Amino acid sequence: MDLAALLTSAGMNITVCVVLFSLYSVLRKQPSNVNVYFGRRLASRRSKSHQVCLERFVPSPTWVMKAWETTQEELLTIGGLDAVAFSRMVVFSIQVFSVAAVICIVLVLPVNYYGQDRIHKNIPFESLEVFTIENVKAGSRCGNNTQEYKSITNLRLTHITASPPNPSHFTIVVRGIPWSPEQSYCDTVKNFFSFYHSTTYLSHQIVYKSGAVQKLKDDAEYMCKMLSTSCASVQPTCKRSFGQCYFCGGSANSFKIISNEIDSMHGRTGYSDLHLTSRKKECAAAFVFFKSRYAALTVAQNLQTANPMLWVTDLAPEPPDVYWSNLCIPYRQLWLRKISIFAASITFVLVFLIPVTFAQGLTQLEKLEKMFPFLAGTLQKKFVIQLVTGYLPSVILVLFLYAVPPMMMLFATVEGCISRSGRKKSACTKVLYFTIWNVFFVNVFAGSVISQLAVFSSISELPAQLAKAVPVQATFFTTYVLSSGWASLAFEIMQLFPLFCNLFQRFILGYKEDTMNGNLTFPYHTEVPRILLFGFLGFTCSILAPLILPFLLFYFALAYLVYRNQILNVYIRKYDSGGQFWPIAHNTTVVSLLFAQVIALGVFGLKRSTVASGFTIPLLISTILFHQYCRQRFLPVFKNNATQVLPLFLPLYSVVSHFTL
Amino acid sequence: MDLAALLTSAGMNITVCVVLFSLYSVLRKQPSNVNVYFGRRLASRRSKSHQVCLERFVPSPTWVMKAWETTQEELLTIGGLDAVAFSRMVVFSIQVFSVAAVICIVLVLPVNYYGQDRIHKNIPFESLEVFTIENVKAGSRCGNNTQEYKSITNLRLTHITASPPNPSHFTIVVRGIPWSPEQSYCDTVKNFFSFYHSTTYLSHQIVYKSGAVQKLKDDAEYMCKMLSTSCASVQPTCKRSFGQCYFCGGSANSFKIISNEIDSMHGRTGYSDLHLTSRKKECAAAFVFFKSRYAALTVAQNLQTANPMLWVTDLAPEPPDVYWSNLCIPYRQLWLRKISIFAASITFVLVFLIPVTFAQGLTQLEKLEKMFPFLAGTLQKKFVIQLVTGYLPSVILVLFLYAVPPMMMLFATVEGCISRSGRKKSACTKVLYFTIWNVFFVNVFAGSVISQLAVFSSISELPAQLAKAVPVQATFFTTYVLSSGWASLAFEIMQLFPLFCNLFQRFILGYKEDTMNGNLTFPYHTEVPRILLFGFLGFTCSILAPLILPFLLFYFALAYLVYRNQILNVYIRKYDSGGQFWPIAHNTTVVSLLFAQVIALGVFGLKRSTVASGFTIPLLISTILFHQYCRQRFLPVFKNNATQVLPLFLPLYSVVSHFTL
Repeated sequence: MDLAALLTSAGMNITVCVVLFSLYSVLRKQPSNVNVYFGRRLASRRSKSHQVCLERFVPSPTWVMKAWETTQEELLTIGGLDAVAFSRMVVFSIQVFSVAAVICIVLVLPVNYYGQDRIHKNIPFESLEVFTIENVKAGSRCGNNTQEYKSITNLRLTHITASPPNPSHFTIVVRGIPWSPEQSYCDTVKNFFSFYHSTTYLSHQIVYKSGAVQKLKDDAEYMCKMLSTSCASVQPTCKRSFGQCYFCGGSANSFKIISNEIDSMHGRTGYSDLHLTSRKKECAAAFVFFKSRYAALTVAQNLQTANPMLWVTDLAPEPPDVYWSNLCIPYRQLWLRKISIFAASITFVLVFLIPVTFAQGLTQLEKLEKMFPFLAGTLQKKFVIQLVTGYLPSVILVLFLYAVPPMMMLFATVEGCISRSGRKKSACTKVLYFTIWNVFFVNVFAGSVISQLAVFSSISELPAQLAKAVPVQATFFTTYVLSSGWASLAFEIMQLFPLFCNLFQRFILGYKEDTMNGNLTFPYHTEVPRILLFGFLGFTCSILAPLILPFLLFYFALAYLVYRNQILNVYIRKYDSGGQFWPIAHNTTVVSLLFAQVIALGVFGLKRSTVASGFTIPLLISTILFHQYCRQRFLPVFKNNATQVLPLFLPLYSVVSHFTL
Repeated sequence: MDLAALLTSAGMNITVCVVLFSLYSVLRKQPSNVNVYFGRRLASRRSKSHQVCLERFVPSPTWVMKAWETTQEELLTIGGLDAVAFSRMVVFSIQVFSVAAVICIVLVLPVNYYGQDRIHKNIPFESLEVFTIENVKAGSRCGNNTQEYKSITNLRLTHITASPPNPSHFTIVVRGIPWSPEQSYCDTVKNFFSFYHSTTYLSHQIVYKSGAVQKLKDDAEYMCKMLSTSCASVQPTCKRSFGQCYFCGGSANSFKIISNEIDSMHGRTGYSDLHLTSRKKECAAAFVFFKSRYAALTVAQNLQTANPMLWVTDLAPEPPDVYWSNLCIPYRQLWLRKISIFAASITFVLVFLIPVTFAQGLTQLEKLEKMFPFLAGTLQKKFVIQLVTGYLPSVILVLFLYAVPPMMMLFATVEGCISRSGRKKSACTKVLYFTIWNVFFVNVFAGSVISQLAVFSSISELPAQLAKAVPVQATFFTTYVLSSGWASLAFEIMQLFPLFCNLFQRFILGYKEDTMNGNLTFPYHTEVPRILLFGFLGFTCSILAPLILPFLLFYFALAYLVYRNQILNVYIRKYDSGGQFWPIAHNTTVVSLLFAQVIALGVFGLKRSTVASGFTIPLLISTILFHQYCRQRFLPVFKNNATQVLPLFLPLYSVVSHFTL
């Protein structure tokens, strides 16, 4: 590893980061940027101060102090369980890698430094060291991870029990209501549940879908409102989220919930006529309310009929979490959609190599001149050449990479998730696979798709190949941590896009009012994969290139502060998945550990140190056993709610009134 | 394919089969064999006739008529849903392969016969034919299989609804009851369920385990009873089953259920003292009774506490189906047991190659002489040489193969299934993987374990390699169908082992009474894999060696008659899994079809017929889609009971009285 080049790169990145963070600490104090950097606080209380003082223009680390001092309870209150789980992922990485860093720096680095041809020298001593590291890492990681899993599980249980009574707790979503020519969906639902669940059934609401004309009209109205500045305070939650939020009022949306059951208790005849006319607009989906949480849970888990594709029941997401347009997808399409999206995701991940190869091809000037002959003239100047070959490929790559999370989010939408948090979780998994494949494997086994598949087809040689290929790319991964990791944090805290939008609106369009309020939710689907990717890199590279660890540790420490600050100040919490991202993190760290052990096996194989190889295999087995234990002990809590922790009270109509705004 | 050798082999096998079947039709009429061939009928009614007439010694096909005439309803009454599902597997195979056989014989065989070098001749014409077959097979199979799955599902639903009220329907098994120093398990269970399920909880019974001394005493008593002939009528169901049946009375068994809750309603004080003394013998498992089937189902499906390894609830198996000794296994061991057994099964399947290679080595005389030098003298005679090299290897192989089902049954027992039917299903899956691997793949890619793994590591070349290797082994598979298939049916109907036991007891020990009564249950764990293996061979070989199909068809036709006869006359039904074997059969046929299509792909690849290859890929995709559809549409019914089909009545104490015999 070229230490000088690495230090230069580190120095440049540190400079950029220091500049950006200083800039941030100044910009955040400007009143005009308050809606960019304090969106969440704005959303909760709207107070501003416009005093001009010197302090506003001096960089200061106060935000670091605030982020540091925030306790977990405060974070839980402000950001929800997902934010706490995310913050714990970062803390967990810091713990594991600080132990690994100390050992690696003290033991391995001197050997690496003084013995360049280390493959043939000091074999038993170094093997032992590497094995120690591996062992310590596995031990600390497993112990730590069980603790973490346990504490997140407990937080989740507290989240389930202690959260204030919410209509969604007593509600289930029913999809695949069978069509009958005699009666409307509404009557079908009523008959079914009042027959089979007569003691606990309370009421229900069919989901309605407006026609195309209504939708166009609504959309026009919505656009109109969005363009007029005055609407900012009226529609605070309907603007910058990925899809539209269909829950904040009936008139401006294409989906409406019409309370029928409760209202029909008061005047049945009035709604009967309405039902006849709106028959065609009913979706085969409904929300059904029950008298107790336990009853809702029970009905949601049971199979209702002999045909498992009819009367499909699930626990309802919280009202702001519902993704309305997916509710109307016929249930029998869903399995087909899931398979198609699965195939599409794999294709996307594999086909993404084409732009990567294209971008890498741009670094060669001759190819470029062939492809774009009209550039031949401009490509004579040296500065232009440097710009084109040096920056253009990375720009193209970064642009392509920016397209990935929205693409995966689109995939998750088409898949048919009925909740926003479920959609984010699905997108998170997809982005995770994408990044680990495209950053780690494609770089390690650089080449075309076919040659990579060929590499993977010889499974028995994988450890040795990994052990050979990873050190070659270690420098790249270290610079990746520096550039992509540190820089991404700096850009994250600067919030460049909202900042420019704000400046554009203020100085070009001349708005006086804040039109951009805090309605960004935390982008877990991009940030969770990022943290996990760096963890993966840390685990796999630490044995063969321990120099990556200090950079990684600094990244995690910075990430801890930055993300806490962002959760406290910028992002709002509209919905909460209840820590559903933790199992993803757990599985990824187990896979990372397994990969690290496989690489260790390869290293020992290359060094022909059979004893150490022999000891690595029990380590592999114990990691798998540990993973299985966690699956048995903790995972069911993330999938089902336990009877024992559910409060057994029954708040009656207060629940329903929430839904019938 | 050497047609003469094949016909010779067929002739020999036909002769053997004809002789054995004639022998059977005579032996079954002898009164002394009535307990061998009419075990089930004996178990239901005990009437015999000892008249000697000529008819008894004339072979006659009456049993064929009876087996043919039996309707599905009769089979359902006598053999249960499992027997019907098994019979449907055979019928389904007959349907599919009769269509395939007609096409193959009419179209492919003449081409194969007249064009020996067919790889280079008639390419487009033959490709088309093969493609047609593949298409027709996929079409008929998918259509048929959906129909079959639907009808089995309906039968299962009927089985759930229409079966007479059974205590097990209202009962759940609770394992992992937490230990508490203050109170006994009995009180813990009572407190838990009367608090969390107060409205539906009826009563419960702790499972007790006797100490070692008690068990020895019981076993001695049991042996004593077994040896005395007079006990035959007292203990009709406790003798020849694999484990002991611990349900038929308390005194002779090592496990007891002591009714506590119901009896303690009458006199609580009497049982309180007993509980104190028997504290150490309590297992952390209990049966809990509920007031309705729906309540039991609900509680069984819900997660009870925040720790998913405590209070684990499942629907209780029927009383004769419970595998008592596994109930006392601590639940937290189970995941470890399952993983260990999974690893052990894979090791067993792979290590089984060693005896196979050893047996194949015995065919070479020189090796044999080296290994056993003392045999050198006897190995000079020609007859001995023929015997040793010709028969010894197959005898050793057959002996090893006979060890497989008991071994897998042992694995399934150690795994910790709490029901006998579940154990049989688990063993069935293991035997299935074993046979398909060891009969198909080992023979196709003959060689050592390592070379086989190497073959599988190059995935992209698999179709071509299969297409090359399968025709080479086609003759072997055809003779395998003849010898293993037809002969196994002849031995199955002859019931050689019980017959010899019977003769031994009658003529050597001089017993007069029947000591062997019908207490054999149908060995689904050996017969289902056999039928499915032949289906797999049929699908994979039919394209390249269509001559296998008539033999296979004859096998299935014979199997249909033989197994029906055995279900009607020999095997009794102690327990019923409710058609749980059908999903296994479905999955295996889908995998077989996929393999056949992959082989077709390889054939087209070898012939460089890209258009046909192109058409095979949509066929593959549609097969996968069809499989997914079936998983969505039918499989959940086999895993859960639907609310709608459960009767909502509540028979009260009549239920409990069954358990407290």
